[in-house]
Amino acid sequence: MRIARFSIDGNVAFGAVEGDQPDELVLDIIKGIPFTDFELSGTKVPLSKVRLLPPVLPNKVVAFGRNYAEHARELGNEVPDAPFAFFKPSTSVIGPGDAIQYPAFSSEVHHEAELAVVIGRLCREVPRERVADVVFGYTCANDVTARDVQKREKQWARAKGFDTSCPLGPWVETGLDLETAGDLTVQLTVNGQQRQLGRTSEMIHSIEDLIVNISEAMTLLPGDVILTGTPAGVGPLAVGDEVAVTIEGIGTLTNKVVKRG
Amino acid sequence: MRIARFSIDGNVAFGAVEGDQPDELVLDIIKGIPFTDFELSGTKVPLSKVRLLPPVLPNKVVAFGRNYAEHARELGNEVPDAPFAFFKPSTSVIGPGDAIQYPAFSSEVHHEAELAVVIGRLCREVPRERVADVVFGYTCANDVTARDVQKREKQWARAKGFDTSCPLGPWVETGLDLETAGDLTVQLTVNGQQRQLGRTSEMIHSIEDLIVNISEAMTLLPGDVILTGTPAGVGPLAVGDEVAVTIEGIGTLTNKVVKRG
Repeated sequence: MRIARFSIDGNVAFGAVEGDQPDELVLDIIKGIPFTDFELSGTKVPLSKVRLLPPVLPNKVVAFGRNYAEHARELGNEVPDAPFAFFKPSTSVIGPGDAIQYPAFSSEVHHEAELAVVIGRLCREVPRERVADVVFGYTCANDVTARDVQKREKQWARAKGFDTSCPLGPWVETGLDLETAGDLTVQLTVNGQQRQLGRTSEMIHSIEDLIVNISEAMTLLPGDVILTGTPAGVGPLAVGDEVAVTIEGIGTLTNKVVKRG
Repeated sequence: MRIARFSIDGNVAFGAVEGDQPDELVLDIIKGIPFTDFELSGTKVPLSKVRLLPPVLPNKVVAFGRNYAEHARELGNEVPDAPFAFFKPSTSVIGPGDAIQYPAFSSEVHHEAELAVVIGRLCREVPRERVADVVFGYTCANDVTARDVQKREKQWARAKGFDTSCPLGPWVETGLDLETAGDLTVQLTVNGQQRQLGRTSEMIHSIEDLIVNISEAMTLLPGDVILTGTPAGVGPLAVGDEVAVTIEGIGTLTNKVVKRG
């Protein structure tokens, strides 16, 4: 099931996305919140009539660095033995169609297409064999990065945490098992031209590895998001660009780049 | 004014702390939340009858590294030219009297006493001359750090973000101006023995510098917390230790170290 979060007439709701033709998608409004047992209301609205929001409002976004060997090498970095994680704050999260605001403190903002894992339940110290139980679903992410700031500053709070640096969406696909999620095409285009292309099977550390690793240290909450790293092909964005992340079996997350006003 | 957050009979409330004798402190319960104009209810409860909670529930905790030259040198690090920031997640925050749970994935957990700045209003790109307007007050923090993990992992999400690694409290002191806050004694004891002693005047980058720096990149929300760095004297904690951070004009934040259960 594809679960979107949206606003309509000033209210926020979740809905199940139905249909296959991009222009004819319909939302069946969910009663309550989708992290517990929920029902579809049967009340349907065309997706074209609503504004999609970030599909979840994460308490925290945990992102893993250098999880694709080719990407590590393209930036001249060694491939790390163990996963390492950093945070993107909830204030960096935007939804599909929202603008990435090019910040004044950087002149080298890069795109990074990533598979995002959405956590479905409160958990910590998750054993490998229980990882599937804590995953709610998957969405597309763009780990937008001020590369120049990242090179200058030892920790990446500003470089990867600035406002609008975490587009998520368009919805959460809940129907993929871990094996399937571990072998999907991840693609990114800028103004329709392909810039990144990889498969989640190229990850150095698997989805299971990453969730075991982070939950060993900290409690994960429903709606928390794990970014799994970006494949090779990262590069600059410019004001006016349209950047789109497409992940097989999930959908396409599109955002425009604007000057921070 | 000293503003505490506490639970009583299962309810959570804020209260103004009155009195000077530690054993005779009283809370005057606040109507509503203290980030906007608020009134005291006149209903008073002895502080000894309630459980103090973290004085705020931050959306994000932004911490600055190596902001005291002597501390940078004691760990063999260079003193950075510009501030650099990292995040501690809200799941790491605990209150006064709560237990620091020694995590299984580290065998070298250190204390780091710090002055914490609590943000009072939504803001971004704060000009230096407006910093005072966005500060709600000050509290004590312990930036508990898995030093061994920090050395191994390039980014510090796990080393400084594990559950219980961010004790805050005992309350927020709202009566200090920036000049006063920039010249306070910061002291830390373990089992009554002094381990850290410094003054906030030794900060390389001032409170104003730090808030200008981080708000240039991201929106700060009411209740967000800025940790301003630790003075020299960091060192190991052991299960059973009682660690206390005392900041002049604010109060004392005490936590026990227990084995993570």
